Formats: sequence, structure tokens, C-alpha cells
Amino acid sequence: MIIQKSANPRISNFDLENFSFGNTFIDHMFICEYEDGKWGEPKIMPYGPIGFSPAMMGVNYGQACFEGMKAYKDENDDVFLFRPEKNFSRINKSTSRLAMPEIPKDIFMEGLKTLIDLDRDWIPKGEGMSLYIRPVIFATEEVLKARISNKYMFAIVATPAKSYYAEPVSVKISDHYSRAANGGVGFAKAAGNYAASFYPTKLANEEGFEQVIWTDDIAHEYFEESGTMNVFVRINDTIYTPKTSDKILDGVTRDSFIKLAEKRGIEVVIGDVRVKDVVEAFDNGTLKEVWGVGTAVVTSVFKSLGYQDRLLTLPVLSDEESFALSLKKDLTDIQTNKAEDPFGWRFKVERKILEKA
Amino acid sequence: MIIQKSANPRISNFDLENFSFGNTFIDHMFICEYEDGKWGEPKIMPYGPIGFSPAMMGVNYGQACFEGMKAYKDENDDVFLFRPEKNFSRINKSTSRLAMPEIPKDIFMEGLKTLIDLDRDWIPKGEGMSLYIRPVIFATEEVLKARISNKYMFAIVATPAKSYYAEPVSVKISDHYSRAANGGVGFAKAAGNYAASFYPTKLANEEGFEQVIWTDDIAHEYFEESGTMNVFVRINDTIYTPKTSDKILDGVTRDSFIKLAEKRGIEVVIGDVRVKDVVEAFDNGTLKEVWGVGTAVVTSVFKSLGYQDRLLTLPVLSDEESFALSLKKDLTDIQTNKAEDPFGWRFKVERKILEKA
Ligand SMILES: Cc1ncc(COP(=O)(O)O)c(C=O)c1O
Ligand SMILES: Cc1ncc(COP(=O)(O)O)c(C=O)c1O
Repeated sequence: MIIQKSANPRISNFDLENFSFGNTFIDHMFICEYEDGKWGEPKIMPYGPIGFSPAMMGVNYGQACFEGMKAYKDENDDVFLFRPEKNFSRINKSTSRLAMPEIPKDIFMEGLKTLIDLDRDWIPKGEGMSLYIRPVIFATEEVLKARISNKYMFAIVATPAKSYYAEPVSVKISDHYSRAANGGVGFAKAAGNYAASFYPTKLANEEGFEQVIWTDDIAHEYFEESGTMNVFVRINDTIYTPKTSDKILDGVTRDSFIKLAEKRGIEVVIGDVRVKDVVEAFDNGTLKEVWGVGTAVVTSVFKSLGYQDRLLTLPVLSDEESFALSLKKDLTDIQTNKAEDPFGWRFKVERKILEKA
Repeated sequence: MIIQKSANPRISNFDLENFSFGNTFIDHMFICEYEDGKWGEPKIMPYGPIGFSPAMMGVNYGQACFEGMKAYKDENDDVFLFRPEKNFSRINKSTSRLAMPEIPKDIFMEGLKTLIDLDRDWIPKGEGMSLYIRPVIFATEEVLKARISNKYMFAIVATPAKSYYAEPVSVKISDHYSRAANGGVGFAKAAGNYAASFYPTKLANEEGFEQVIWTDDIAHEYFEESGTMNVFVRINDTIYTPKTSDKILDGVTRDSFIKLAEKRGIEVVIGDVRVKDVVEAFDNGTLKEVWGVGTAVVTSVFKSLGYQDRLLTLPVLSDEESFALSLKKDLTDIQTNKAEDPFGWRFKVERKILEKA
């Protein structure tokens, strides 16, 4: 791997207590290019622009997908990733569906570990703090033909993160728009899925909702996901979540919540979650909680659900009563090395880059 | 508009008789950037790379859409666009669905006319020849948040084109994959739609088919489109084509074929095209032709349809017997100024750029 260190690191000007999420980038990025059927030399270099023309296939035909993961710093300044192998295997489920080349495991994992190790000073510490890491692969060939590209760039960029969406939010159960088709790409972290969700989300925002609960495109009878998160419903003391399919992203947080709930002895039912059943549970007082889960926010608690012309206001639970918040704590304690890790989910990023390498 | 002419035009080295479509770009490109809620100064500049980091929202979240249109040169070297207003209005249907800013008409049309005028020498002349023009808009903000971008680039690039897909092709009627969801973005020329189609197309290719006839994602009972084209079916002497919807792109060629067919007195039925009815027509000998239409190839004639475990081999018609080929000729004669233009579809690109401007 080529490591080209930044001549002008910005870290000394970076205020770990006060920064804006998402557009403050760590000093370096990792890139590796694919051409002529093979991957080239992986490289770490200063974060910054690369030359692409507007004919780049990635923006014309959307052959692009990504991952979202986090690094956490504990009290002793040790740095941990969370289940990175899950993101590795998922990005290749995405590339496969988008007819892009498979990313080799060593390129993904070595790139990730080396980049995070090198820029470990950028990782903020403390409650809810982390480094948000974005592996992304996109087609770079410059050709105006709607066909599979022959050139790609795999990159990893990262931005310091605070948890956001802390307040419970109001969500709209979609009765017109959808995010995925049967036989489509909903299960992939395909770039185009996100753009497709922005306009329906904007419309929901205008109606006073923060997010959309996506439902099936056939008759809007079943929950699929919420915003860019997987969704959980608690009726009495049982948790329900849709089973994964070609329309639903197989979330790492979802999987972790299921395992943590089972560990707590909470009953989890994985299967169809019918809108009608959720509304009925609301009406008979058994609907306790509905929430979304994902790497970015861990848990987004819903305070109300908009359904057709109704607004279903959910009960307010204490942190202890709430399954959503109890499981969130279980998870973040493991992520940040505050608790035992019975599942072997934490992945320590070793210090290998010497100060003056 | 700023016009920055290329200091090293490549046109003198360009062989109009022998070039590869899609990756030979004309000397210039048009760009206009959007920021802070408004469009900046439009600019024509040499075709080439622009700096973007891998955090560019266009590749991360797929906020990107495009148009495809052509310029034709007639015997007298006059240059014509074909129904450019259709592409203008369609790109804004796409931007609207993808929560992108509307492109103002003067930016689109002036950019287009000035670029084509300036690089008119790049347009090849003769049967099937044209300049393929790609207006494209994509999100350029560098932020790792799945939300609407605040910055965009609208660009126009172009490549000389020969007609391709000349031979009749074999297509597979999809019984598993789909390209669009109800309430989704199928009607938009959204970048992500194309990437999503590559893998199912590759699988079809491996089975010996050149393209996929997309069917509805619910039960694969209805024709939607074929490859990146709209689809027509002829049973006896009546033409059928699916009605446009939120799943079907409203093609300029489709609309032109409908009008030209009506002008010829051919009956056109716009509505549901059921797979079952097509197969039944094949079985009773009334299925005459099935073909795709689009700007790139005008008409792609299908020689056979793969349906489940059957291969339906279509009759071979002469050019005169074929509605597909008769209508193609009607259309290309108008496009290339070989015939009257009763519909007012041709749009002449005036010579305005002086040699040494
Ligand atoms: C559409 C969608 N669903 C669900 C999730 C949650 O997945 P994860 O828990 O792996 O972050 C994400 C990503 O964050 C997503 O983009
Ligand atoms: C999905 C799709 N359908 C149909 C068409 C045909 O549209 P048009 O005739 O405007 O080129 C296109 C574009 O060429 C397309 O991308």
C-alpha cells in the first residue's frame, strides 16, 4: 500500500468539541482503482478532489454503492470498529447486484484499518461520539453507453460524528411512494436508492413528519424500512421486525438489536409487519414502541405515526421501560468498550503507523 | 455565457468514418453550477476532468439524472436537433422526482445550441450518423449525510454516433427482476435506474438474450419497457404500447412513433400490454412484430422472445411489411431533413459562433 501523508494536516485546527457532521473530513482518504479486470495498488493520500469528467459512468448510470460504519474511541484512546466484516460482506452483495467487481477482503480491511489508524486523532471521544466511515465504490469510466463500466474507484473517506436525531420523531407511513421493487435493488446500498427517497421524504417533512416508514409498493400493507433505517415495532412485550428480502437492507444494527433482545429474553418475531396490525394494536392500547435502527443514529425513537388522516401518538416510556433505549444502551456500551462483548463484535484498530513513518 | 475555447482541439485528428461511439468526446462541454439556491454563470470549456472527491453526493446518494438526444447533419451541412423541448421538459420531471433544482429553460437551450454550434464539425454525416448529446445533472456537495444536496452541476457532453443494434435481437421477458416500483422513480431518467438494470441484463445475456423486456414487479404480467427503450407490439395490424406511468419513461421516440403510426392510419392502442395476450397472439399466429424504440437506436427489431422455458420466434418481415422499419424510416427522414416535417419536430441549430470569436 502506498501511503502519501498530507503535507498540510488540518487536524490541529479541528475542534473536537464543536464541529459539523458530514462535511469535515479527516486528513486522509483511501483509494484503490479497478481497471482491465483487476485491482491496482491501494493508496492512502490526502483527502481532496480527483479529476472526473461529467461523462463519468458513476454519475450517469448510478453504478455506485457504499457502506456506513463507525469507529469508537474508549477511555484509554483505544479505537474500535464494530462488526466490520458485516460491512465488508454487504458491500459485495451491493456490488454484485449492481454488476460491479467484488472488492477483495484485504483491500477493504487493510484500507480501513490503516486509514483509521493513521487518522485516529480525528476520532472524537465521549458519549455518542464516533468517526463515521464511508467506503464507497463507483464507476469511473467515461463512456456514454448504458452498460457495465470497465473502471471503478473504491474509496474510504471519513468524518467525525456526534449522534443525531436524539429527539423522538414523528414519521409518516407511506401510502403512495415506495423505496424498492420486488426484483429490484432495495437490499443493496445502491446510491440511487437514496436519491429516490429524498422527494417523498421532503413531502413528508412538509406535512410535519421527520421520516417516512416505507411500505410495499403493491398495496402499502407491510412495513419495510423507516427512512434509512430498519424498523422495529413493540406490541405488548414482543418485538416485531420485517424479515430481510430483496427489498430490505440487512442492517448491522438490526441484526445486533435482534441478538441483544434475545439475550435479554425479549421475544423477537421476524416476519411480515402489517400496517393494519400496528394500527389495530395502537387502537387497543398494546402498541408500546416503534423505532428505527441504523449505524448513523443507532436508534431513532418515534413519538407518533402518521397513517392516512390519523396521527397515532405513542406512549412516552422511561429509558428503563423502553426496549428501544435499553437495547441502544446495550449496543453502544459494547461499541465503546464499556461492557463485555459476548458476541465478539468489537474489532480493535491496532497502532501500526509510526509517528514519522 | 463564458466561452473558453479549447487551445488544443482534437477535431483535426478525428476520423469521422471510423470512430468508437461513446468514448470519443467533442472538444467542448457545457457546464453550469447551482449553489445557494441559484444557478451560476453558464460556461463552455474544453472537455475534460473537473475535481470531485469521493464524498461527492452524486456518487454516494445517486442524485443524478440525464437526457439523451441527438443532432443530425443534412446534405447541406445544416444541423438539426429533434424535439429538444421534450428533453428539456423531461429532465425537469426527473430533477423534480429526485429533489434536484429545476434547470431553467434558457440555460438548457442556450447551452445546447451554443455547444452544438461550436462543435458542429464533430457531427458525422450520412445514413444513421449523428451526434449523441448527453445533458446530465448531479449533486456535487461533499457531505456524508443522506439528504438533498445543496450544490449541483448541470453539464452537456457529446459523442459522435453511428446507429447500433442494427441486427434483430433476441429478448427475454423478465419473470423475476424488475426495473421500477409503483411510487418509485422508473419514469425519471434517474442514474440509479440504469445501474439497477445491468445485472439482470447480464444474466439475460448469459442465457443468449441481448435485452430484457421489463415487466411489472408484482406478478410480471404486463410489459413495461425493453432494455432502455419503450416497447411496441403488433398483433395483426394493430400496434400496442404500454401507457406511461410512474414506472415507464415517457420516450420521445415512443411519442413520435405513435404520431407517425396514426398519420399512416395504423391503429395504435395505448394501454396494458399483457404478457399472456402476447404469447396467445404468438400461438394463434397473429403476433407480427415486437420492437423497442429510443433515441440511441431509433428501433431495435426483436427476432425472438424468451418467455419462461419457451422461445417465441417472430416472423421475418420485409422492410415494407414491417411497421417497425417503416416508422423508423418515417422518423429518421424527418430527423435528417430528408422529408417534410408536418409536426414541427426539427429544430435547426443556427450558425452563430464566428470562426474566431
Ligand atoms: C436503507 C437503509 N436501511 C437500513 C440501514 C441500517 O443499516 P446499518 O444498521 O447496517 O447501518 C441503512 C444504513 O444505515 C440504510 O441505508
Ligand atoms: C428507460 C428508458 N426507456 C425509454 C427510453 C427511450 O426514450 P427516448 O425515445 O426519449 O430516447 C430511454 C432513453 O433512451 C430510456 O432510458
